[in-house]
Amino acid sequence: MATNKVVDLRSDTVTKPSDAMRAAMAAAEVDDDVRSADPTARRFQEAMAAIMGKEAALFVPSGTMGNLVSVLAHCDVRGSEVILGDGSHIHLCENGGISTIGGVHPKTVRNNADGTMDIDRIVAAIRPPGGGLYYPTTRLICLENTHGNSGGKCLSVEYTDKVGEIAKSHGLKLHIDGARIFNASVALGVPVDRLVKAADSVSVCLSKGLGAPVGSVIVGSKAFIDKAKILRKTLGGGMRQVGVLCAAAHVAVRDTVGKLADDHRKAKALAEGLNKIEQFTVDSASVETNMVFMDIVDSRISSAKLCQVLGTHNVLANPRSPKSVRLVLHYQISDTDVQYAVTCFKKAVEELLKGSTEFEHLVDTTTKNSYGH
Amino acid sequence: MATNKVVDLRSDTVTKPSDAMRAAMAAAEVDDDVRSADPTARRFQEAMAAIMGKEAALFVPSGTMGNLVSVLAHCDVRGSEVILGDGSHIHLCENGGISTIGGVHPKTVRNNADGTMDIDRIVAAIRPPGGGLYYPTTRLICLENTHGNSGGKCLSVEYTDKVGEIAKSHGLKLHIDGARIFNASVALGVPVDRLVKAADSVSVCLSKGLGAPVGSVIVGSKAFIDKAKILRKTLGGGMRQVGVLCAAAHVAVRDTVGKLADDHRKAKALAEGLNKIEQFTVDSASVETNMVFMDIVDSRISSAKLCQVLGTHNVLANPRSPKSVRLVLHYQISDTDVQYAVTCFKKAVEELLKGSTEFEHLVDTTTKNSYGH
Amino acid sequence: MATNKVVDLRSDTVTKPSDAMRAAMAAAEVDDDVRSADPTARRFQEAMAAIMGKEAALFVPSGTMGNLVSVLAHCDVRGSEVILGDGSHIHLCENGGISTIGGVHPKTVRNNADGTMDIDRIVAAIRPPGGGLYYPTTRLICLENTHGNSGGKCLSVEYTDKVGEIAKSHGLKLHIDGARIFNASVALGVPVDRLVKAADSVSVCLSKGLGAPVGSVIVGSKAFIDKAKILRKTLGGGMRQVGVLCAAAHVAVRDTVGKLADDHRKAKALAEGLNKIEQFTVDSASVETNMVFMDIVDSRISSAKLCQVLGTHNVLANPRSPKSVRLVLHYQISDTDVQYAVTCFKKAVEELLKGSTEFEHLVDTTTKNSYGH
Amino acid sequence: MATNKVVDLRSDTVTKPSDAMRAAMAAAEVDDDVRSADPTARRFQEAMAAIMGKEAALFVPSGTMGNLVSVLAHCDVRGSEVILGDGSHIHLCENGGISTIGGVHPKTVRNNADGTMDIDRIVAAIRPPGGGLYYPTTRLICLENTHGNSGGKCLSVEYTDKVGEIAKSHGLKLHIDGARIFNASVALGVPVDRLVKAADSVSVCLSKGLGAPVGSVIVGSKAFIDKAKILRKTLGGGMRQVGVLCAAAHVAVRDTVGKLADDHRKAKALAEGLNKIEQFTVDSASVETNMVFMDIVDSRISSAKLCQVLGTHNVLANPRSPKSVRLVLHYQISDTDVQYAVTCFKKAVEELLKGSTEFEHLVDTTTKNSYGH
Repeated sequence: MATNKVVDLRSDTVTKPSDAMRAAMAAAEVDDDVRSADPTARRFQEAMAAIMGKEAALFVPSGTMGNLVSVLAHCDVRGSEVILGDGSHIHLCENGGISTIGGVHPKTVRNNADGTMDIDRIVAAIRPPGGGLYYPTTRLICLENTHGNSGGKCLSVEYTDKVGEIAKSHGLKLHIDGARIFNASVALGVPVDRLVKAADSVSVCLSKGLGAPVGSVIVGSKAFIDKAKILRKTLGGGMRQVGVLCAAAHVAVRDTVGKLADDHRKAKALAEGLNKIEQFTVDSASVETNMVFMDIVDSRISSAKLCQVLGTHNVLANPRSPKSVRLVLHYQISDTDVQYAVTCFKKAVEELLKGSTEFEHLVDTTTKNSYGH
Repeated sequence: MATNKVVDLRSDTVTKPSDAMRAAMAAAEVDDDVRSADPTARRFQEAMAAIMGKEAALFVPSGTMGNLVSVLAHCDVRGSEVILGDGSHIHLCENGGISTIGGVHPKTVRNNADGTMDIDRIVAAIRPPGGGLYYPTTRLICLENTHGNSGGKCLSVEYTDKVGEIAKSHGLKLHIDGARIFNASVALGVPVDRLVKAADSVSVCLSKGLGAPVGSVIVGSKAFIDKAKILRKTLGGGMRQVGVLCAAAHVAVRDTVGKLADDHRKAKALAEGLNKIEQFTVDSASVETNMVFMDIVDSRISSAKLCQVLGTHNVLANPRSPKSVRLVLHYQISDTDVQYAVTCFKKAVEELLKGSTEFEHLVDTTTKNSYGH
Repeated sequence: MATNKVVDLRSDTVTKPSDAMRAAMAAAEVDDDVRSADPTARRFQEAMAAIMGKEAALFVPSGTMGNLVSVLAHCDVRGSEVILGDGSHIHLCENGGISTIGGVHPKTVRNNADGTMDIDRIVAAIRPPGGGLYYPTTRLICLENTHGNSGGKCLSVEYTDKVGEIAKSHGLKLHIDGARIFNASVALGVPVDRLVKAADSVSVCLSKGLGAPVGSVIVGSKAFIDKAKILRKTLGGGMRQVGVLCAAAHVAVRDTVGKLADDHRKAKALAEGLNKIEQFTVDSASVETNMVFMDIVDSRISSAKLCQVLGTHNVLANPRSPKSVRLVLHYQISDTDVQYAVTCFKKAVEELLKGSTEFEHLVDTTTKNSYGH
Repeated sequence: MATNKVVDLRSDTVTKPSDAMRAAMAAAEVDDDVRSADPTARRFQEAMAAIMGKEAALFVPSGTMGNLVSVLAHCDVRGSEVILGDGSHIHLCENGGISTIGGVHPKTVRNNADGTMDIDRIVAAIRPPGGGLYYPTTRLICLENTHGNSGGKCLSVEYTDKVGEIAKSHGLKLHIDGARIFNASVALGVPVDRLVKAADSVSVCLSKGLGAPVGSVIVGSKAFIDKAKILRKTLGGGMRQVGVLCAAAHVAVRDTVGKLADDHRKAKALAEGLNKIEQFTVDSASVETNMVFMDIVDSRISSAKLCQVLGTHNVLANPRSPKSVRLVLHYQISDTDVQYAVTCFKKAVEELLKGSTEFEHLVDTTTKNSYGH
């Protein structure tokens, strides 16, 4: 049993570059990409635009920048408002940058347990056209697919299309935070370009489940990408010989998308394993992609202490709330690792209940709201 | 019957200055208030500070500026977040200025039907201290009393104190949008200074039910007002011989507060009169202050058409939604006016159902979200 | 000699409303101007649009808001840049609001001693069209006429037209901070509408030399004013029964413009009177309108101490720098007041040189940069 | 003669990673740096902090982000003003991001031909403390060393110290845009930590003369870097397995600093070579580091056409103005390349004067202001 190996279930952002990615970085043909001259970046961006079914693509250093640049590009006039989920990553976990940096006003709509927002509520949130003196102007709707805060649930192509129609009929744009859009595509069995057809822009993370070391890519129309490029420069995301990163990302897209189905299978297995432990409960049916939200149903066990004890067994996990834990699978977690993790959860419960371990009390607020891509 | 007189129920912002206010304006001793030298402004501000039980006060040209300056003064560091109701005037009806002008990120909490936000939800919305890289910093909670979007409901002193305690215990500030705080004070029978004791700042409208021609006043600590003064100047709200407006406002506070109870009584009377009309329904119990929200329960009548027909009878009202109307009382609406208005609502229903009048179809979106202080 | 009367030469903002203005305020027909329903405001705005030769006008609470709203209306897209004088009021004395509130980037061009910027320098400051990734987009040029920081110098109609041509040929807008545009019009003998013909917008102060208690007005195309109205509301400058202020302003424009020539004559007289005092020097030729910049050429006298001693004689003046004083004339300063002031300057010098008075040392930094409209 | 090789003199940003850098990227030990867990990033940042003589360091994707994050960290309160050169890169070539994204107001001071700003002018630009209602608050002074817009001139340690003293005595911070600070250190013969001793923060570019593929690093106190980290995340500059870039950057710092003196020598050689061509003039004495500003003194030759013809000879250069060209040396330009370039300049002049080539007319504005790091 791999006791020396760390099984890191905190996030799929912890994946490390494969040998193929490293080789690609070392060999990448590069040039100054601020001048749009880097051939590897260009090839990668063209490939991503094609895969996503959009005119153009742009590499950015992070998902946060991908979303920020996209929202700002669609909302370039002062007094813009964006409709987005009250449980969305953009609203909760990106420092409020669209407001604090971009001056865009968010109008949140309640996220359902499946990551959707009710269509009626979206429509009701749209400001009246020529809305007079009191209101900002609605310019954008944002979806998130898969929806992280609901445990990696997939938005269906029908739902996405419907929101796209509403956007179009009201003269709005639709942006999809597709940090894990490939997970949704694989889980739904819908080609990714079809899944995002209704969107004016999509941001796709390369350094989560896909395993690239750094970066996200945004896709959309050529006009959108032209605006995005200026905004990326303004924010400081224009990089020089960025081909070294794009080369790795290209390998990631080529090699790892095919492994996502495996991650989903392993997530199910982990959910089922944990569900057998009396002190935990996981809704197995809710595990649609690579995330597992596990609830602790024993009043004596807090998520903070549980995660601490797990750490002593080289299993890393993050509390999601005082009584729940988020676990994320990725291709560098093997079936054996999953089994090992389940065993350690059991052990940790035993140790905690025996009182055989002593951990300092963790303040609730430090774990509250704990949630990240 | 006063058919030539207009009975304006659209808002209490339509009140016109009394003779006493006009005389005060004409006689006001003034000086350059940007230099803090206007004696009438100083006296008025001192009086308001005393009435509200705070150290200092500042006259501003509008309630919107009062709220904007207050939020910005409390959130003067980049990356600030404010917790406020999803049905609050600041969030819905002030152009999103706290974000689009101030770069402050709003975190909305659901407003209940009585204008409160659940205490649990407020607490849950507070970001963890030292919240790391993902979150803005919570700096402020905003309440609204009376709460306009719930029909002028009052927040109790107990509720306000409780939110104040939460704010204090988390190192946050509490701002009250008290556009109609005197209505709440009168309706609750709680002295206004007691009602806002827990607040670090309050904005009070002078040109609604109080009847002053122009202006609001904000109150708080001396340090808060010092910051607010700079922000008021930055926004362009510093005015020169503003004593002319403060003189009228001083009369308004002196003469009109005592009349608010009458407005509330007349609102009840209007509600009861309308409730007797078959096509309408008003929850009389929900009329706590000077507002009446009336629902139309006849499928053949839209609020837009109803208000149009009312206009032909010199009764002015605004749709609140396709099937509801908001009516606001103030001291320039007499008991006779209320009776006249009820009669006209009856007539309008008859005319609409007889089809004796022809009105162009109004697009729903023009009335949607229609709501203002 | 009027020893009890205060001769206030600090600014023309200190003018107090005349009896006619007070009567107009008391009698004004008013309504809710946020609904654009105030008849007095409408009439005043229409009159100002006509006088200034523009399509529409908007009353705002201050010159700062007039300029802020104008710059923001022209620069409504993120990433805008404005070209303006490095000695302009907008750049120096309005809290940097166009950046700190509006996110507009200023590109300053050197102001010459006559308040102009060299045409070559303006052209050089315009960013290349489609300027690529490195530059904001130039959208606006601002002039200031009269130019306060150069002592109230007038920009000629030829110069203004020339800058207007450059703006037009580069697809830019031209805004004139015309806080004292009527002074320029009178001094140049050019009708005010002709003087601002090349401008897309002008802000005109009503509460300086014109003597209204409060307010400025901005003028421009109907489309510009429509945008400005929303911005005014966002900033909190939308006022309710604002007719009371507009009534006074209307009287000010009617009664006071004709008196500005007198102010200019009195400024000349003051300049000449002061120039005869050995310790002072004033370039009389540079006094074009209602301002006098006086230099102190005696090393023993600082402007701060001089102004303090003058205060004991009821003559109020502000240091402009450690060795210069700014004096502003207006219609409430009589010829007798001017003579009295000159006498007091003489006395003050004598007292200071005799050392018969003792004043605390004022730190230089408190007077540095001291300059306001 | 290497006719197939491109001699790229447009900027030192075009340097390509060496084999050693590529190997380092491929072998880098990495982890999730958003969690501050990447060991290679940590080691690199610690090394840079030590080299620069500061407490802490932070890797950022670009120099633009390095400057933006630094200015925003120092100016975190609304209403901040920064003093910086009117010819500085931050002011001219970073999209005005400090204003358009950060809401910071720039107060420019004239840059002298040597890249300095007069000390007197800096002091005069500082706003008075507690400066009242009219002014933003000065919080920061920015220097740029070497100063790009003056041709790569070095600011001396004495000058930098002096500005640092002024900053300190006024309670301000000092930031140095040290994109090419190692060039200054080498040219002046002053250790880099000594050269920036007076600064509270420095941004250092890794992908210019140092040759790393991507990135800059900012250094300062631990408290500054803590703030900067949050801002980097807000802007979207937090990257995951960023060790791959830091590994290359570490090699760049180790291997390339020692080669900068050579770049300076080659710049001198190029300047002297070009100076011998009749149609050009270069002030050799002004070539202090790796940049050459060459003026065209023949009225028949424009910089745009000259650069086009040079391109046909595989020599790349950018117009700086219609009559001048900027040339930048770096370690991937050999002595042979310099000779080849001089030859090509000669040929290009001959071709242009013979009229043997035909190039489309380039509009002047496209080249105007053309200038980048």
